[in-house]
Amino acid sequence: MADEVLFELLHYEIVSHICNSSNEEDKASSISKLEALGYRIGLSLVERLTKDNPRFKDDLDTMKFICKDFWMTLYKKQIDNLRTNHQGVYVLQDNRFKLLTLISQGKQYMDMAPRYLAMPCGLIRGALSGLGIVSVVTAEVSAMPACKFQIQIQRL
Amino acid sequence: MADEVLFELLHYEIVSHICNSSNEEDKASSISKLEALGYRIGLSLVERLTKDNPRFKDDLDTMKFICKDFWMTLYKKQIDNLRTNHQGVYVLQDNRFKLLTLISQGKQYMDMAPRYLAMPCGLIRGALSGLGIVSVVTAEVSAMPACKFQIQIQRL
Repeated sequence: MADEVLFELLHYEIVSHICNSSNEEDKASSISKLEALGYRIGLSLVERLTKDNPRFKDDLDTMKFICKDFWMTLYKKQIDNLRTNHQGVYVLQDNRFKLLTLISQGKQYMDMAPRYLAMPCGLIRGALSGLGIVSVVTAEVSAMPACKFQIQIQRL
Repeated sequence: MADEVLFELLHYEIVSHICNSSNEEDKASSISKLEALGYRIGLSLVERLTKDNPRFKDDLDTMKFICKDFWMTLYKKQIDNLRTNHQGVYVLQDNRFKLLTLISQGKQYMDMAPRYLAMPCGLIRGALSGLGIVSVVTAEVSAMPACKFQIQIQRL
């Protein structure tokens, strides 16, 4: 039980540290630092998770791995919904995203959400990169604590 | 397996972030930021770990909890050795401290050790504080990857 919160507590503290030590103008740079930090962790983590696995057969198969095993490792739950337009865009919906449950859920706190979603976006992008998929990952919060991660695959 | 490394990966990235974004003069301030961050996490974590527990009967009993349950939650192993002078000083030895196994083990890397030990010192101090013990916690590396945490209880 306490094991599960360790990653969240540490994540929460990093967000505070990075965002509070920067002024208002540096807000974008804080977000990008958190994203980059997530990217490196996602990359390392996916290497360990998949080292004995066969290769995934296609992008959809890779996304299913992200939704199940990868999310389970990070947040002890699976992604609730996966959609795709079959043209390289995937939307992963988590109906109860852990980090957002730690902050207050009123509408007035919505502007706090991006800082807690930057690292998770980086985690996804890093994991996909480790699996050979270059992507752009963004997050969107409609009703706290639900959120959607949109993955746009970049064809080279 | 991958679960276990998540906390280490994140810890490692925080150390890099905090230490690399500061110049040489700010080294002490980086260490103290990492310690403070650990303190807050230790405090939150111990609250969750002990919420259903009876109170500990004395300081030694509390230290045994830190060596076993608390360390197990953080590092999936127990402290290898606990010593005390029975005058408020406790020395906790970990013969193979996880974070130190991530960095190279040559003597020339010894000066890298303090940055990886600052947060663990804070974690211990925070946990003890949550259990009603005010302390000063320092760490010492003799032979990598072994290290000793010295706890000096402060009587008020």
